[in-house]
Parts: sequence; C-alpha cells; structure tokens
Amino acid sequence: MTGAPGSPAVSRRGLLAAGALTAGGALAGGAAVAVGTGRPDAPATPPVPVAAVGTAVEPFHGARQAGIATEPQAHAAFVAFTLRPATDRAALGRLLRLLSDDAARLTQGRPALADTEAELGLLPARLTVTFGFGPGLYRAAGLDDRRPASVVDLPSFRIDRLQPAWSGGDLLLQICADDPITVAHAQRVLVKDSRPFATVRWVQQGFRRSPGVEAGGHTQRNLFGQLDGTANPQPGTPLDTAVWIPDGPPWLRDGSTLVVRRIRMDMETWDLLGRTDRELAVGRRLDTGAPLTGTAERDEPDFAATDESGLTVIPDFSHLTRAHVTDDRFRILRRPYNYDGVPAADGSADSGLVFAAYQADIERQFLPIQRRLAERDLLNEWTTPIGSAVFAVPPGCPAGGWIGEQLLG
Amino acid sequence: MTGAPGSPAVSRRGLLAAGALTAGGALAGGAAVAVGTGRPDAPATPPVPVAAVGTAVEPFHGARQAGIATEPQAHAAFVAFTLRPATDRAALGRLLRLLSDDAARLTQGRPALADTEAELGLLPARLTVTFGFGPGLYRAAGLDDRRPASVVDLPSFRIDRLQPAWSGGDLLLQICADDPITVAHAQRVLVKDSRPFATVRWVQQGFRRSPGVEAGGHTQRNLFGQLDGTANPQPGTPLDTAVWIPDGPPWLRDGSTLVVRRIRMDMETWDLLGRTDRELAVGRRLDTGAPLTGTAERDEPDFAATDESGLTVIPDFSHLTRAHVTDDRFRILRRPYNYDGVPAADGSADSGLVFAAYQADIERQFLPIQRRLAERDLLNEWTTPIGSAVFAVPPGCPAGGWIGEQLLG
Repeated sequence: MTGAPGSPAVSRRGLLAAGALTAGGALAGGAAVAVGTGRPDAPATPPVPVAAVGTAVEPFHGARQAGIATEPQAHAAFVAFTLRPATDRAALGRLLRLLSDDAARLTQGRPALADTEAELGLLPARLTVTFGFGPGLYRAAGLDDRRPASVVDLPSFRIDRLQPAWSGGDLLLQICADDPITVAHAQRVLVKDSRPFATVRWVQQGFRRSPGVEAGGHTQRNLFGQLDGTANPQPGTPLDTAVWIPDGPPWLRDGSTLVVRRIRMDMETWDLLGRTDRELAVGRRLDTGAPLTGTAERDEPDFAATDESGLTVIPDFSHLTRAHVTDDRFRILRRPYNYDGVPAADGSADSGLVFAAYQADIERQFLPIQRRLAERDLLNEWTTPIGSAVFAVPPGCPAGGWIGEQLLG
Repeated sequence: MTGAPGSPAVSRRGLLAAGALTAGGALAGGAAVAVGTGRPDAPATPPVPVAAVGTAVEPFHGARQAGIATEPQAHAAFVAFTLRPATDRAALGRLLRLLSDDAARLTQGRPALADTEAELGLLPARLTVTFGFGPGLYRAAGLDDRRPASVVDLPSFRIDRLQPAWSGGDLLLQICADDPITVAHAQRVLVKDSRPFATVRWVQQGFRRSPGVEAGGHTQRNLFGQLDGTANPQPGTPLDTAVWIPDGPPWLRDGSTLVVRRIRMDMETWDLLGRTDRELAVGRRLDTGAPLTGTAERDEPDFAATDESGLTVIPDFSHLTRAHVTDDRFRILRRPYNYDGVPAADGSADSGLVFAAYQADIERQFLPIQRRLAERDLLNEWTTPIGSAVFAVPPGCPAGGWIGEQLLG
C-alpha cells in the first residue's frame, strides 16, 4: 500500500485549493456575513456569488476562539467526549495539540495530517471548530482550581427531563460549516484522532437555513416557525461585553462559557394551537418576530401596554417577558441549531433545538434567565429540556500554538 | 382560539413572498443549475447571487414528476409509508389529492392549506416532492395488473444484510430542497396529512454539498471521498431514454421506476487502505474521478490497457469495470445522498449512502448492474446494503390534477 495522505497528487491539489482561496478571499472575507435575499422585508445587502460559499474561510488562530461571534453557519455537529481514565494533564496536552492542528488545517481548506479522505478537506465553507472544557477535564488534569466557577452542572429545574445520553461531557467540539459534507468530514477526522484519549459521549447534529437562503445577520427560525435569537447582543461592544471574559489569568481571559441544552419541541400539541395563542405564548408575532406591542423584530417591547380589557398586551408569562434582559452585561448569545429526527410510526415528530448559549458567566447571565423561564414561561407547555451540559471555552491560540495551552501547557 | 392558518397576516406575507418569487425568477430560473465555483479545475460558469437560493422554484405540474431529472438539491428526506388496512382505492385517491395539493403549494413557496407553520413554507429553495408507488399500493387499490412488471422486491444478493427497518414501503415521498428547514417543514406537513391513511415505515435523511459550494452539474462525493455518479446518463436524449417509460397506458407513460438502497460504508476498514488500493478498488482516481487509464472524470475507460507486468490497469473486479454500461438504454440515473449518523462510543462511524436510482425498467437496467456488482466488486469489501425498496414512479399531473390520477382516478 502506497500513496498515503501527503502523496504528490494530494499536495498538488491542496496547493491549487490554497490558490483558489486567495483568489476567493476578497469576495468571501467581508461579504460572507452580508449576503442578499429575495425577501421583501430583508435589508438590501449586495449579493455575493454562490461560488464563494465553498472556499470561504474563517480564521482559526487568534486571541479568541472562532465559532462564537462568527455568523452562524448552516450546519453543526456538537461532539461531546468522555476522557479515558488514563488521560491526564500530559495526555490532554497531546490530544489538544493534535486536535488543534487538525482544526487549524481543516478550517483553512487543507487536509489534516492523517487525513484519509483528503479530497473532502478542500472546501472549508467557513468551517470552525470550537473547543469546550467540561468540569471533568479540569479534574483529569488536576487543575480544578483553574475552572471558571460557573462551569458546574446546572441546578435541576422542574421542567427538566434530562437524559444521560444527551448530558454532560469532559470535552466538547462544536463543529460548524456552511456545508454538511465538510462538517461530516471534520467530525470524522477529529473523532478518529481523539480515540486514544476519549470515547464519544454524545453527538448532536443540527441545521439552520442553507447559505444564500436568507440575509446575513438574519435571526433563525426554529421548527415551531418562531424567530429565535432576536434578543442576542448585537455585534461590537454589546456582544463583546456579554460573551468574553475580560480579565483574570491567561487561561480565562478572552475565554467564555457555554451551555448546551437539548430542547424537545412537541410539534403535536403546538400544532393544535391557533396563531393568536401561539403569539401570546411567545409574546411576539410569528411572521415578523415583532413584539406584540410593535411592528418590527427589534422594536423594544412595551410590557406596560394594556388592551381594552386592561390586560397587558404582552402576557406576563410570555417567553419574551420571562427571558427579557435589558443590560448588555447580562445578555446571552444564543447560537441554536434545529434538529429533526425520524418521526415515529404514528407520524409524531422528533423535532427540537440544540440550544447553545455563550456568555462570560453562566451564574450571572444564563441562570437568572433560565430560573425565570423554568418558574413560569407559557412555552414550557410545548418544550422539554432533555439534555444539558456546560463547558468552559478557553481562549484562542496564535499560529503554532494550541487550544488549552494557557491552562495545560 | 382564532387566527388559524390563512389569517390576513399570513396571506399578506404569502403574497409578498409570491412577488419576490416573480422578481427572483429571472435569476433563479436558468441559472440555478449553473452556479460557479472557486475551484480551479471546475468549468467556468457565471456565478449567481446567493439571494436566489431560497426563492428558486422547480415546477410541480407537468407530464413528468420533478425531482428526477432535476439537478439534485442539497438535502433529501425519503419517507416511506405503510398503508393502513382500510386504505382502499377510493381512500388512496383522497390521500393523493391531498398530498398533491400540499406539494403543489409548498414547492411554489406557498404554505399548505392546513399549514400550521406557514412561515416555514415561504422559501422553497427548489423543493420537489416525488411520489413513488410500492407493490403494496397496487394491491391495496385492487390494481395489481397495472403495476409495472419490474416493480417487485429485488432478488436477494449474497452481499445483502437487509434490515426491515430500512426496507419496503407502499408509498414513498422523496422530498428534496436546497434548504434543510424547507425539507423538515415539507416532511412535517406531508406526514401529518397522511396520518388517516398510512403510518410511517421509515425515513432516510441525506445530504450533498450545500448550494454554491460546487458548480452545477458536478458529480457528488460520498463520504469515502469518491466521486459518485460519473456514469449517469447526460441530460437530453440519453437521460430521457434511460429514465422515462416511453409508451404504454397513461398510468405508465412518462413514469419511471425507483430503487432505494441503504448502503452502509465501513469507514473503519476503508480508512486502513492506502490511496493506491482504494483507486484500484474503484478503478478511478480519488482526486479527479478519472478512470485509471485517463486524466479527466469523463474520459472513456480503457479496460484493455495493461501495465508493464501485463495486468490490466483497471482491475477486472473494480467497481468501474463491474458497473460499466455503454448503451444509454441500459444506464441508470443515480441520485444518491450521503447519510452520517451518530458515531458509536468507540468512534466508529455510522456513515453511508441513501442510494436512489431511477430507470425506465428495473429488470433491464438496474438488475444486470447489481448482479455483476454483487457477484464480484472489490468495493463490496467496504460496503453493505442494509435496506432495499422499489417503487413505480407515476407520471406527473397538470395544474388541477393529482399524482396517481391516471392509475386511481
């Protein structure tokens, strides 16, 4: 057997692809987050040629990890690992060097070093690989004192029906790209290289709109048909303030924290509701996403406004009311993906949300919102959390470095 | 509860979207199958704006069903149903009127009549819904004499490890679109409307490259990294000859037949092979897809060419040699989708192909190829058929008509 990865044919192809990237970069760089749309209510943004979708690149190296402030890609696989008993601090260093090298290459459209399907590594389609460290990773490394304080199992909520199959994890890889073959290939490479160190605990695959279907910066719709993520902190200072840890030791600064919840959505009972009842449960219009007191998605809700019978227009127990946050420091960055499994024989859907939220501090930001929602949110009637996991998101790394080196190096 | 589907807000939005379709139509109509790519080896085709992806429309009405000669969309759900015992010819007529109406609306970017998530029905992204009739449908209708003769369970092949969970079916809906939310929504609507008449037997979801990642008319890559479908009949007369039933009674003419096989691909053992051995197993180069005797994907293979040791350059047992067909009348139209499930704890992949092949006659076209492959194809070492189903594809219908009316009306 000859011609292992790195054979001349592959390398030549890799170089050609790299050349194409340079040529396409000018198109993809600035325009990737500002694509046009045919929808009449969307902002007019200059269309970019679809040719740029496959070769568009997100940077891997930097002070902060990619895949967080990055405009969400169309497809995601969240892969959680359980570390093997022998994986200690030194072994973690080897694992993370290996996975960082894979990610650094694949995200830039180059096959991984041990890539056995090199042809699938040439079109990154904005691939990002984001690393999260669960509580178990700190314990395995003997570094529990360096764990961000808020990265602990969430308290139980009365609405939870958590399944171990979708919960926990020592190490998380959030793999996102605008192309599903790119995601599948990256997942395969990263899972293979993790085998000596870890087993797969769970994988959650999800999707949003395909590239080019809606305008850049659009709010995604979930399978209930709702706009989901309107209240996200806006790019720039609000997002920076909400998401990134501003100070502390090097293994925390420019990091973040991540909550991944699997939310089953009961399409069967939801579909029995009329539109008005749905809109009251959410507090927003289904079509525009506007609060019931407004006309546009980002209008500020007026929780005091009442109708002719003296009831608040936006119900006090609506999802909007209960989840509302006005101070940017306490917002969370929702970066959810839809899932849609195989329906049961009777046609019941297996649909829901891989809810991923980034924030600087879970205790100060995520938990207050979650407590209010768990206590009383009309939407709870149709949604059930069936999985839960928390991760510290370490800072990024410079070229030649590796994710986790500030903690483990 | 008020504001059911069809409320003024929805209708207004629907009209706006319809206007957008008209505006976008000029862009999407001709160009949707000729998108550009940044890859240096791809044909230079004019780029189309990504804005056209969501609003692009495939016709539903016509002499032949859509979703067959249609340039393959990025996402697919193959949904197979088992008819309930009470579903007779008259009930089948009602079911197919209902599903045809749903499909006629959704494919054109309009919500279905009973659409409870109307907002998800506005961006068709080239949605097609293709109907297939299994042997059980003809029995249920008391019309077994009208079944195309070749639409019967395939003979057993020694390589088969068929699982009932992926096999058979009385009615198939092949739902394809360039957007995964559109596919999920269409699946939901169609499954809900089928409930009084049928149960869900199996659903197979699959994917190809996202829109805009590769040039129109490209051959897809499977998760082994191989180009898959190079030998497809080319659009025009070759494809027409291979796929469509040219004559016979109205319930056959302009119809076709479909074989759906679920092919598990053993990534674990495949990844142990070197590139040379892989290329010998397939008979083609992994990078370009060219036969081992050529330099470009569509070069005619030279099965007589020998190397210095006197062996044929393309092994006699290669997949290319065994699957080769020269006469257009005997070709099949491969329209496969990749699947990638959740890997096992040890990292073993659950990957493969939803292999869908259209041809005028399964007995004359599909079976001879399948027999040669089952008998001796090097690729069998790494692939296993785990599901199998056959369907007649009825002709299309005009506006106001319904799929199956020539058979059941």
